[in-house]
Parts: sequence; C-alpha cells; structure tokens
Amino acid sequence: MENEAHERLLSVAHRFFETDPMEGAHTIEAMEPSEAAAILGALPASASIEMFRYLQAHDAADLLKRFPTGLFTAIVEGLEPEQCADIFASLSENGRKTFLERLPQRTQREVQKLLSYPEDSAGRIMSREFIAFHPNVGVKDAIQRLRSLANRKAPASYTYVVDEQQRLVGVINMRDLIIASPDDTLGTIMRKELYTVSSFMDREQLAEELSKRQFFAVPVVDPEQRLLGVVQSSRLIEHVQEEATEDIQKMFGAGGDEKAFSPILFSLRKRLPWLYVNLATAFLAASVVSMFEGIIAKLTILAVFLPVVAGQGGNAGIQTLTIVMRGLVMREIRTERVWNLLGREALIGIVTGLMTGVATGIIAWVWYGNPYLGVVIGLAMIVSMVIAGLSGAAIPLSMKAVGLDPAQSSGIILTTATDVVGFFAFLGLAVLFQAYLL
Amino acid sequence: MENEAHERLLSVAHRFFETDPMEGAHTIEAMEPSEAAAILGALPASASIEMFRYLQAHDAADLLKRFPTGLFTAIVEGLEPEQCADIFASLSENGRKTFLERLPQRTQREVQKLLSYPEDSAGRIMSREFIAFHPNVGVKDAIQRLRSLANRKAPASYTYVVDEQQRLVGVINMRDLIIASPDDTLGTIMRKELYTVSSFMDREQLAEELSKRQFFAVPVVDPEQRLLGVVQSSRLIEHVQEEATEDIQKMFGAGGDEKAFSPILFSLRKRLPWLYVNLATAFLAASVVSMFEGIIAKLTILAVFLPVVAGQGGNAGIQTLTIVMRGLVMREIRTERVWNLLGREALIGIVTGLMTGVATGIIAWVWYGNPYLGVVIGLAMIVSMVIAGLSGAAIPLSMKAVGLDPAQSSGIILTTATDVVGFFAFLGLAVLFQAYLL
Repeated sequence: MENEAHERLLSVAHRFFETDPMEGAHTIEAMEPSEAAAILGALPASASIEMFRYLQAHDAADLLKRFPTGLFTAIVEGLEPEQCADIFASLSENGRKTFLERLPQRTQREVQKLLSYPEDSAGRIMSREFIAFHPNVGVKDAIQRLRSLANRKAPASYTYVVDEQQRLVGVINMRDLIIASPDDTLGTIMRKELYTVSSFMDREQLAEELSKRQFFAVPVVDPEQRLLGVVQSSRLIEHVQEEATEDIQKMFGAGGDEKAFSPILFSLRKRLPWLYVNLATAFLAASVVSMFEGIIAKLTILAVFLPVVAGQGGNAGIQTLTIVMRGLVMREIRTERVWNLLGREALIGIVTGLMTGVATGIIAWVWYGNPYLGVVIGLAMIVSMVIAGLSGAAIPLSMKAVGLDPAQSSGIILTTATDVVGFFAFLGLAVLFQAYLL
Repeated sequence: MENEAHERLLSVAHRFFETDPMEGAHTIEAMEPSEAAAILGALPASASIEMFRYLQAHDAADLLKRFPTGLFTAIVEGLEPEQCADIFASLSENGRKTFLERLPQRTQREVQKLLSYPEDSAGRIMSREFIAFHPNVGVKDAIQRLRSLANRKAPASYTYVVDEQQRLVGVINMRDLIIASPDDTLGTIMRKELYTVSSFMDREQLAEELSKRQFFAVPVVDPEQRLLGVVQSSRLIEHVQEEATEDIQKMFGAGGDEKAFSPILFSLRKRLPWLYVNLATAFLAASVVSMFEGIIAKLTILAVFLPVVAGQGGNAGIQTLTIVMRGLVMREIRTERVWNLLGREALIGIVTGLMTGVATGIIAWVWYGNPYLGVVIGLAMIVSMVIAGLSGAAIPLSMKAVGLDPAQSSGIILTTATDVVGFFAFLGLAVLFQAYLL
C-alpha cells in the first residue's frame, strides 16, 4: 500500500521534472540535499538530466557527490562540458579530484581543456560545439550537411568558415545562407569582416562588447586565429549578473563566491578574516577617541554625539562608494575624468555636509542648550562629509590604479577613514571650543 | 592656416567615429558636453550615427539637446526606437517634453508606444523589427521574401508564424528553414511549442529565463497571444548588469539611477533625503547612549570602546545583507528556506561573535587592566553580532515579504539596528557590572 503511494508520488515528480525542468530545479534546490538525492536516485537518469541544467553549480555538485556511479555518469554525460567545468569550479580541492576521476574519459579531457583558461575568461564559457566548413564548399552541400546535422544541438545562428589550418576566415549567418544561390561557394558569400575575441578576454569586457554590438554569439580564437569555440550572448547573462553582484559582497569582506546557502564553514572562512581586519581598524578609531578622554570626562554629551558624526560620514561615504564601484563595473569611468569625479564628490560633500550639519547643529543646540556645541558638531559634520565623499571615490579608484581589486573590502577601509576623520574633527573642535562648551 | 589644421583634425575625428564607434563613444563621453557637441556639430550626421548607439543614454540626451534641429533629426532617425525610449527615460520632466516634440512623427509614436510599458519590463526593450509569415506560406516563398528583405536589419535567428489575427502560432529558426523541403508550408515545419513572455514581464525574470534556456531571442505577446515584438538576449546583458548594480546603490540611499557623472543636482536630490533619514536614525542611536551618560561620566573608557562594538556589528550585518540581497537578485532564495537562512546567519553570528568578542575582550582587559571590562565588551560583541546577522537577513526578507523593494535603504535600517542593539548591550552590561568596573 505504502509502496504504491510512493511509486505514484515518484511518477508525479518524474513528470514534473520533465515538463518544467526549471521549476523542478528550484524545488530541488529548496530541499535538503540528502532528501533531494534520495528522490532523484529513485528516478531514471533521463528524468533529471534536463533539470540538472537549471541547477546552481553548487547544488548540482552536492547532488552528484551523493549519486552512485551509474547515475552520476548518466547525468554528467547529458551535461555540456561547460556545465561540468562550472560544477567543478564550485568544489573544494578534494571534491575536485574525486569529481574529475569519476568523469567519463572524454568529458574529463574536455573539462580540463576548459579549466586551462583563466576564471572569468571567454575560454571558460565558450561552447565547443559549432559548425565550420572550408571556403570551397558549395552552398548546396553546406545546406545538405546542415540537414544531416539537424538533430545535433548546435548554436543555430552562425556557420563559420575556416581554412586548412583551422584559421577562421569568414562567418555566414543562416539568413545569408538562405538567400544565397545554391551554386555559390561559402567563400564567396561569407562575411570577411570578422569580430573575434581571444579565449583570455575578460568576461565583463566581452559582455560589454556583445551587448553593444548586439551579436548573438561571438567566435573565440587563439593567437593564430584558429577557431576554438563560440560564446553565446545568452550564456553571458548569468555570468554578468553574478559578477556584478559579487562586487557588493566583497566591499564589506564577504566572499565574492559566497552564496546565501553556502556551507557555514565556507562562509566563516571568507568572512572572519575581514571581521578581524575590521576589528583592528575599529581600534584605530577607538584610539582617536581615547586621545580625547579628558574632554569626554568633562563633557559626556560628546560621547552621545559621536555616533551621529560617525554614522553620517559613513553613510555619505558609502553612497559615493557604491556609485563609483558601479561606474567601474559598467566601465563608465575613464581615467581622464577622475579629477572631475573627485571634484564632483567633494562638492556634493560640501552641500550635503552644510545641509545636514546645520540641522544637526540646531538639534544639538536645542538639546544641550549651548549654541557652541551646535557650531562644533555642525562644522565637524561638514568636514566629515567632505572627506567621506572624497574617500568614497578615491579609495576604489586608487585601489584600481595600483592593480588591486577595487571591490575588495573597500567598504571596510572607507568606514575606518570616515570614523577616524569624523572623531578627530568633532573631538578636536570640541577641545578648541572648550572654553565656550563647559 | 588655422582653419586647415582644424579641418584636418575634424577629418581624423570623422574617420575615428566611423572605424571604431565604440572607442569613439568612450572618448566623447569623457569630454565636456559643450566641446563634444561642437565637434559633432561640425561633422556630417552620418559620421556620428553609429557612435551614438554606444553612448550612455544620459550622455546621448545631453548632446542631442545641444544639436540644431537638422542634426538632431538625422541622428534620431538613425537610432532604434528602443534607444530613443532609453534616452527619453533618462531626461527630466521638462527635457522629456522638448525631446518628444522634436522627434519625427513616426518615431514619436513608436517611442510613446514603448514608453507605455512599465520601466524594467520586457515591453520597454523589445525590438519591433521582426519577420512574421502566415502558416500557409510555402518555404520557397518565405525564402524569397527573406531574400528581398536581406538589406533590412532584423533579428537573424528566428522567423515567426502568426495567424490572421496576428496571434503567434509557431516559430521557425533559420536552420529549420534551410533543412526543410522547398515545397513544405511554414505551418508544417514550424515549432509549435512556443515560449513567449508578456510585455509586462520583469526584466530580471526575463534574464533568468533567457539565460537558463539559452535562447537567442524571445517573442513578446499581448494577453491575446498577438506578437508585439522580440527581445534579444544580447540586449538584456546591459540591462541586467545595470539592475544588479542599481541595488547596491539603493542599499545606502543613493539613487538606483544615479551614475558617476550624473548632474550634481540630480545626485543631491537622490541622496539628501536619505542622509536626513540616516541622521534621524543616528539620533535614535545617540539617545540610547544618552540614557547611559551617568556611567560614561564615571568611566570614559566606555566611550572609547563604543565605536568598536558598533563598527563590528555594522560590518558583520552588512556582510549578511550583501549576501542576502544578492541571493534575492539572483532568485536563489525561495520562501521555503527562509528559516534555514535565518538559522544559518544566527549561527555564523554566534561563531564570529565568540571569536572576535573574545579577542576584543582580551584587548580591552590588557588596555584597561580590568578583566571585567573584557567580559562586558566581549559579551556585548557576541550579542551585537548575532543580532547583526539576524537583522542583515531579516530586514531585506521582510521588506520583500510586505511588497517593498528590499534594496531601498536596507543598509540604513540595518546600521541603525546594529548601533542601537550594540550600544544598549554594551552600556547596559556596563551598568550591570559597574560594581566590578569602577
């Protein structure tokens, strides 16, 4: 009885994964990996192959690890080598070795070839399934060949023309082929102005070029112009989104590759070192405060307003930082305009500093009943916000200029700068004005 | 003499814009708009049209505003209606009116049609240039028609099949057309399993579907299944990158649509309101401190350690926030797993709180010579970091649950929470332990 009910449930799951593999993948991702593996293990491999294409690399790896060899091999054979490379890249050192060993020979070679390209490069995400002919092939023959390949999956938009040395010499889009006379050769109808990219080209740059040029796909070549593969623009979308959002995480010292459901130990390994760095920088700010313990003892209201100055400077600085980081990601900031940018942020700092500084000064005056406290905190806030704006722009730009990743922990550096400057300006001014404050 | 040199320079610029319009656009973007307009104004429109496609919408608008009507019209006629809509969307209320009035009649209508779709929807970025036939058209005739359209730009990958009411009934990719027998009709060779999207579909969701399904383009239909346009995946890349990075900016109250070189007044209008909100929340944190002025007056070292507790909690919280925000953008967080996520972040908060709390406690003990100060600050840091982790996850998730934008100023809310909790825990514990501290 129970068995029958179980069988029925399995057949429902089977049908679900086959009819809507994307939603199926979402459902699987939301389950405990052990439960998910048990369900998929009870189904034939054919039921899950489509669904596997939609899984996050990390989840796919987690499931594959749990499968017996037969199911493992069947699923892996159904995936594209690029997907295997993605899964591989999401594994730990140890996991990689086991994973690679379990791969079928041919896939192993393909995956290793892809992995020889740098992370984030065109080589890593190119498909090696493309259609290429020699230039002396006739249009009629090419069409016949395409017809016989009809059942193989291959990018459907372009056919490539290569010479005897496999060097790319032309490209034909399918529409050109349709409108050509059957007696032409490919060499006469192909387009010879080629746009190609190197397998080492950075994906962000590739994304920019592809999106501006509105190509469906772009051929990847080696330095001798030999055709290695094809990157489809649809494949770039996911990578671009991933990279753009990685940068936010890195700004405050979470790992760029950390996900909402990464293993906890992985998250700790990524975040903890930066939390210690942040702690060290917090003590730097604390030591500024400790220089002024004397006046704080006499005037505890200063301790009350400290978080206001620091918080406001920090927030203003992060606003600038996020805008400059985005400008860098989108390649909108050219070196010629860096001084413009700094001037712009300084000006915004002055205006916002004045406007919020005056407001804060008035509140402090009313709260404490002494106009000079208002003057001190108002002035401190203006200084703090100008420096915040300048630092928010200068920190990522200088990190980039010296070859560092501008995202990596720039948020931590920034808040240290705004804290130190804010505390120093506020408490220093308080010392200067102390005759009027006490 | 001078004139001749000027002419020569202009011809160099002309050649540059024609041969490498993308780099040309970058060069123009880096110039003062008035200088750039002067140079482009001296060239024939044909020299700049290609280059205009590569300009940021905002820069393009700025230049177009400065052009005389003749040049304006010539450039605008060369742009796609989607690009005009993009430019239009980047303008202020007033600029929009003038811009629309100057557009040629036909483009005006097209742009208005596109603008009737919500921002961030498929309708806004679809191209209305597509090829559609009726199902009874023969393959031979279709190929002939395609041949005659050869010089018109149109997405080259798919041909669509619509019935008498313009309802989409099938899709044919160019390869299918090539391998079909010339005597077939389109109705017999078309694929009938259609993947279509509504013109109101959100672009982020569209990007996810397109990238998972690896389509080059997707047809956009109205509720009656009538074909309205086509979205190409290459066009989505830019939008996806833009949207993913918009969210970071909104987290701390900069405008999602602010760019590194937006007009200063625009930036002020976006940032200033949130800086005032941040100020108000900072006073909330300050009022917590003011509740404890008594003990701070007796023990000024507490004021020194305040920024350490607050800074550490704030940073830990932002780490969690960035990871959860990214999970939301990438649609990796399903509602079923929200409790998992909160549990996970609480656990990470406990571990990181313990590890950095013990370190801080020891430093405080050594610094101040009193082990109880170490106990107080260590405990406060653990509490503060657990709450930080929980808030970093709970704030964007609950904003999303009640229908708010989880990005909008979640960073400001978060740092308020971590400040208030951190100050209260630290100073409250100090009061409890005051017998041992003084």
